[in-house]
Amino acid sequence: MNEILNDEIKRAKELLNNHINDKNNDELSGVDVADCLRVLKKNNEEEYFSYLSRLDVQSLVYSATDMPEHILKDLLTIIPNDKLVNVTKELESDEQLELLEHIQEIDEDKAKIIFDELDDNDKKDILKLSNYDDDEAGAYMQIELFKANLNDSIHQSIQNLKLLKESDEIEHIFKLFAVDEKGVLKYAIPLSDLVINDFSLKIKDVVKKNKEDKFKAIFAHDNDPIEDVVAKFHEFDLSVLPIVDSKGVLVGRITTDDIHEFIQESATEQIYNLVGVDDDAEYEDESIIKASKSRAFWLLINLFTAFLSSAIIGIFDQTIQTYVALAILMPIVASMGGNTGTQALTVTVRRLALGEIEFGDAKKVIKREIGISLVNGLFFALIVGIVSFIWFKTPLLGIVIAMAMLINLGFSGLFGTFIPLTLKKFNIDPAVGSSVLLTTATDIIGFFSFLGLATWILL
Amino acid sequence: MNEILNDEIKRAKELLNNHINDKNNDELSGVDVADCLRVLKKNNEEEYFSYLSRLDVQSLVYSATDMPEHILKDLLTIIPNDKLVNVTKELESDEQLELLEHIQEIDEDKAKIIFDELDDNDKKDILKLSNYDDDEAGAYMQIELFKANLNDSIHQSIQNLKLLKESDEIEHIFKLFAVDEKGVLKYAIPLSDLVINDFSLKIKDVVKKNKEDKFKAIFAHDNDPIEDVVAKFHEFDLSVLPIVDSKGVLVGRITTDDIHEFIQESATEQIYNLVGVDDDAEYEDESIIKASKSRAFWLLINLFTAFLSSAIIGIFDQTIQTYVALAILMPIVASMGGNTGTQALTVTVRRLALGEIEFGDAKKVIKREIGISLVNGLFFALIVGIVSFIWFKTPLLGIVIAMAMLINLGFSGLFGTFIPLTLKKFNIDPAVGSSVLLTTATDIIGFFSFLGLATWILL
Repeated sequence: MNEILNDEIKRAKELLNNHINDKNNDELSGVDVADCLRVLKKNNEEEYFSYLSRLDVQSLVYSATDMPEHILKDLLTIIPNDKLVNVTKELESDEQLELLEHIQEIDEDKAKIIFDELDDNDKKDILKLSNYDDDEAGAYMQIELFKANLNDSIHQSIQNLKLLKESDEIEHIFKLFAVDEKGVLKYAIPLSDLVINDFSLKIKDVVKKNKEDKFKAIFAHDNDPIEDVVAKFHEFDLSVLPIVDSKGVLVGRITTDDIHEFIQESATEQIYNLVGVDDDAEYEDESIIKASKSRAFWLLINLFTAFLSSAIIGIFDQTIQTYVALAILMPIVASMGGNTGTQALTVTVRRLALGEIEFGDAKKVIKREIGISLVNGLFFALIVGIVSFIWFKTPLLGIVIAMAMLINLGFSGLFGTFIPLTLKKFNIDPAVGSSVLLTTATDIIGFFSFLGLATWILL
Repeated sequence: MNEILNDEIKRAKELLNNHINDKNNDELSGVDVADCLRVLKKNNEEEYFSYLSRLDVQSLVYSATDMPEHILKDLLTIIPNDKLVNVTKELESDEQLELLEHIQEIDEDKAKIIFDELDDNDKKDILKLSNYDDDEAGAYMQIELFKANLNDSIHQSIQNLKLLKESDEIEHIFKLFAVDEKGVLKYAIPLSDLVINDFSLKIKDVVKKNKEDKFKAIFAHDNDPIEDVVAKFHEFDLSVLPIVDSKGVLVGRITTDDIHEFIQESATEQIYNLVGVDDDAEYEDESIIKASKSRAFWLLINLFTAFLSSAIIGIFDQTIQTYVALAILMPIVASMGGNTGTQALTVTVRRLALGEIEFGDAKKVIKREIGISLVNGLFFALIVGIVSFIWFKTPLLGIVIAMAMLINLGFSGLFGTFIPLTLKKFNIDPAVGSSVLLTTATDIIGFFSFLGLATWILL
């Protein structure tokens, strides 16, 4: 173990050394710099601080949004404010906002100082962006754009591109957005289609030269939900999507790397939420206590529902005392129902998230899922019934457990779809509460039908 | 319900009409065309065939890879082979391969006929691509490239771009890949950095004019696992990644839209696999029987392990007959252990998939997860112990269940991490088998420790 750890430290130091010795300090990405610092801090504070002071300000700021809070805190005490401001000025507007929000969590005054020192334009952009809700397209967009008027020549627009590039304020330029005099978005022309023309041509003539609608812009509104934006990227294989306001005026763009991050993070969130884990509490640097607390919340709800199941079993204590076989077999009914329901639930939650189904499809989806769970219900009722009959040599016990299985599995298909669809209908994230509600339902139905039928038929 | 259905049909027809009446037939994306056809086919075969014959061949072929098999089958009988070949020729090499593979599943001869009619170059490319394994970078790349020799002028390269564009064989051009005489990849220059220069400049001079390493190419090898490619896209915010062979020769490129699809699909696969659902069997068009069968496999394994748990309970039938309270309380121990373990398991599986941890981190990760589950184990042991004592007025019963909870939750943290890490070590997808193994372990340990301690202490 110590060997692995030593290797890790050695590797982090080697990477950082290469990065520091590299003339342009671009050997490592921001994520990598943050990772190396994290490894060092955990194992050798002294070396960590030495590297922190030797790294250039740009590399540190670029990795700041990938740092855990405690490292960012160290960084903020080491870098003088004026240097911090200078590097922040070079970032794109959405990155500036992300950085300021990250700093704000630690040191509100510092964030305010940096903000005040920025250019008026930057300030305006940041204020504009910070007004959007977290789930709106606007919150994900950059304001820096490569655009041109329809009457501009290609030559003029390429000159603008040159200025933009020199100011270092925009990366990943794939398309020119053509607007009219009012700034309304008209066309989106891939750079590769633009530069193969004579540069004296006007933008509007480039459009005319090509098939009608070839450069028709696919766009989203700034207030559109981000999920719709993701769907558009997917559907049209986009690299960049222009964002317009309610009047159609071009206000920003979302690039594909922002979408990647969103997809990965929301998939992680969904997977975690399904088992009652909060992704924010799971970073390695967060304390065990914080992670335990966040997970305990869901376990507590689960405990409550487990006691509920116990209470149901308690009703039938006489029956169990007479037929101990019931106590032996009852976990089978509950576990098979829970698993069948969880399958239906997971498929429904994921398909809702991917936009493949919505509440309007409820009847169709529920029918399909009940169908699937009844087919499996019949199959497993038969197996479990026969095995139980052979095991305990009681034919009626086999019939009782088979009936209970069929009832429980059928209902589990119903609840596995009905619960997430209903939560979604009321705008509650179906990934979060679903599985507790579901297992409560399947446990109660499972124990009640099995022990109830047994009391009725066997006693 | 019928109203919703009618609306759906009406909307599909409207969309298809607009698409057919549009001069360029590009109102709808391939996915949309496939969706509309699917809706029609399900509800009105006659209208479906009428639209199928009225749609242009290009739209149909472009939507072919998004179609369920039964619609593709109809399409293949309607479109004459020569038209099919012509449209296929326009596709990029990776799309050609995807289409041919999709057709091959239905009609092997037809796929062969189309393949034979393609240009020799296309054939060579397809054969090359189809030689890669599904999880290799090469399988995801396109062979069509915008590249130039270091000694070419910008003007020459833009002329090449024009030819490429006119041949309609490549979309999404973001970067020029500069190679030496042997075809070895040297630099990747964003189009936006290229075209702001004097066009008489040579590519190598563009590189020299800028900061050293500014255009250093980030690349992957054709045999690299696709997961590494995804990680690179994420880490460096890429739009395109050049792929080289073992000698460094540029052989293709992967664009961001391919990566999107991979991320979404692998997230879905992971979520489904965790509950024993096979994503391939879950498409709406697949029959209920197929979906039931695929889900039943996992339920069958779960049934087997449930019987195992029952057998364990069976050992203690005498104890249960004496203390029915044990039968009432035992689901609590099992359910809390299962849920605690599932949380640890899910976090570990997801972090493995995201590349945040690997087998080398095992000791660290296991320590952390056992820590979390012991903290929660202590907390819940206390609660459950007290409630059980009050409920059944037996102090020793409270102590027994508290001890069993602590043991089971502690082990659930261990197994929740150890199982996926070990599966990963042996190159088995940790999402697939983990949760069955885990709940088997937590059920057995839970029932055994609770009933065993009860027999030992209470009897």
